[in-house]
Amino acid sequence: MTNQEKAIQMHKKWNGKLETISKTPVKTREDLAIAYTPGVAEPCRLIAQDKQLAYTYTIKSNTVAVVSDGSAVLGLGNIGPYAAMPVMEGKCVLFKEFGNINAVPICVDTQDTEEIIQTVKNLAPGFGGINLEDISAPRCFEIETRLKELLDIPVFHDDQHGTAIVVLAGIINSLKVTGRQKENCKVVINGAGSAGIAIAKLLLTYGFKHLLLCDRHGIIHKSYPDLNWMQQEMAGITNEENQTGTLADALKGADIFVGVSAPNIVTPQMAASMNHDAILFAMANPTPEIMPEDAKAAGVRIIGTGRSDFPNQVNNVAAFPGIFKGALESRARQITEDMKLAAAEAIAGLVSDEQLCDDFIMPEPFDPRIAEAVSRAVKEHAAP
Amino acid sequence: MTNQEKAIQMHKKWNGKLETISKTPVKTREDLAIAYTPGVAEPCRLIAQDKQLAYTYTIKSNTVAVVSDGSAVLGLGNIGPYAAMPVMEGKCVLFKEFGNINAVPICVDTQDTEEIIQTVKNLAPGFGGINLEDISAPRCFEIETRLKELLDIPVFHDDQHGTAIVVLAGIINSLKVTGRQKENCKVVINGAGSAGIAIAKLLLTYGFKHLLLCDRHGIIHKSYPDLNWMQQEMAGITNEENQTGTLADALKGADIFVGVSAPNIVTPQMAASMNHDAILFAMANPTPEIMPEDAKAAGVRIIGTGRSDFPNQVNNVAAFPGIFKGALESRARQITEDMKLAAAEAIAGLVSDEQLCDDFIMPEPFDPRIAEAVSRAVKEHAAP
Repeated sequence: MTNQEKAIQMHKKWNGKLETISKTPVKTREDLAIAYTPGVAEPCRLIAQDKQLAYTYTIKSNTVAVVSDGSAVLGLGNIGPYAAMPVMEGKCVLFKEFGNINAVPICVDTQDTEEIIQTVKNLAPGFGGINLEDISAPRCFEIETRLKELLDIPVFHDDQHGTAIVVLAGIINSLKVTGRQKENCKVVINGAGSAGIAIAKLLLTYGFKHLLLCDRHGIIHKSYPDLNWMQQEMAGITNEENQTGTLADALKGADIFVGVSAPNIVTPQMAASMNHDAILFAMANPTPEIMPEDAKAAGVRIIGTGRSDFPNQVNNVAAFPGIFKGALESRARQITEDMKLAAAEAIAGLVSDEQLCDDFIMPEPFDPRIAEAVSRAVKEHAAP
Repeated sequence: MTNQEKAIQMHKKWNGKLETISKTPVKTREDLAIAYTPGVAEPCRLIAQDKQLAYTYTIKSNTVAVVSDGSAVLGLGNIGPYAAMPVMEGKCVLFKEFGNINAVPICVDTQDTEEIIQTVKNLAPGFGGINLEDISAPRCFEIETRLKELLDIPVFHDDQHGTAIVVLAGIINSLKVTGRQKENCKVVINGAGSAGIAIAKLLLTYGFKHLLLCDRHGIIHKSYPDLNWMQQEMAGITNEENQTGTLADALKGADIFVGVSAPNIVTPQMAASMNHDAILFAMANPTPEIMPEDAKAAGVRIIGTGRSDFPNQVNNVAAFPGIFKGALESRARQITEDMKLAAAEAIAGLVSDEQLCDDFIMPEPFDPRIAEAVSRAVKEHAAP
């Protein structure tokens, strides 16, 4: 049976993947009097006097909402909120299994930016954080930015920042393996959607200087056609020489390629045109921008993908559980650039010097140390 | 230690009462490939083709949102969404323990009717039903009515209908004990908020003919001051003689009293003025409209309260788990009057002829048959 057949069978058997349970027994009249009326009135009264006590007496301190409008679901596109539910439930399962965080899937029945913002703002009181998921660009940028202003809990669009953090972690270790300095590297990112833009921003924050962002018409420059407002912003902070040309042009002599775009978009010739000891992350799912064996044959040294059946899996699951764990435990109001950089360093740091090599730049996804290490790093860098 | 102290301790120890867990293991790469990417894409694709399959492949079929704005929380009033969370979490716990239904507390950060409607409409795709809770009148009437029009899943304001169903169940059995016919009874309801109005409506639907609804200025009649639109509607369908007067006037010769109002509002003299073999449900919490011993001493025959430390506890927990269980299992789009009447009959029917007496008109809250019996009755009366 294929994984897809198994997935159908499993989802059907259980009617979805999540369950809510009580942490406290309700078997007797006394249990009921403590968990519900009249006992419950007392924590209510205390929270009414001091809203912060919601973190003590309710699930807020350890519960995240996973919010999507289903407009940009992994490899499936705009399938809407109903069809997005299995992915969001899966994400909630990962929150629990990897971070011991309770998570609730909220698939919103609107793709109107203002309605999404208002809906998330309104449902926030019971949650300690908001994980935005699979919302299409450029709406995702405005939704996240506005919600960060409106809410006093962390709001984190994982397609952007989770991806950027794990890519940076992989790059940090790839630089070590290939003996490069970030300042001197030429980096090409293909795909100027939510992930590509967030990766570009985080790499710039980390200290990369030479960065080309490409989309379907090639290298993004100041007079590239039909840029949205966020891509225009990116045209101003990447491509310092305002270079034009195709992805193939961009890749000539490049040290690092990061693809968050489409299958088979990088040819062996393009891969071969990169600098020696090139680093290539082909993250399109399930079929990468170039298959690892082809990239290897073309002379690329370090190859990462999103897939578990190749070495160097670059997977968000290394980031978001620990990020939220750290943010929730420190009661951070936002997840800052500092916290993201610290998370990437922490993930990279879990690969020991002995392990580190071309085919081992990322910790294994099931490495039980990851969430704890990321969470610790995030807490150390949480704003007071 | 009092129940309130125990409640504080328990809520603090666990940081709230709910937890989300995975129904499927995620311990290996293969588990991940089935519960998340790439396997999860297959149920997504199927739901994208047929929205109804969300009931097969997601938690929708057995998950309810418990939504409140914290504007009318049990005995505490308008304490807002943060302070309402312990009650909503408790409600979710009861959904699971009594009905085996997953439930998620959603406390909304707005008391604007339109915003609440839009928020609930938007978060509905992942849920199989909406339990509205502790929303003040008359906003609750409009919110529920409008959401019923907008959504294709059941929307049920438990303060209204859950309360009305359990009260009717108690009254059905009280009529049997006292040998009364509903058509001939004079019923007085005190408290013209969400519960009182819903009780009045359900009793009329059931077949009661003579009903006085009272509020703080006495019997509601057509020129009663400051009626909201729903109370005006009630003035048109109760009090057929357009009687005026105080609650004391109303109670003279009454067969049945239902209080959903305030502590100690019924004096022994008022209770004594009721018809012989009177039936009195004093449901104000935690202190009833008249203490059972005082009502008994005044000659009332059957006395019910909301409390577990007196006989005849009339508690919503007998209704809502089974109501939603039946509605979810039958995929009913609405919870109709027929379904509510059937639920009340089912609850009443669980008290056997041998058990039935002045002090045993309601099944015990922990009677394990209740949810199943209510659910079965609801399913039998679900619209096709």
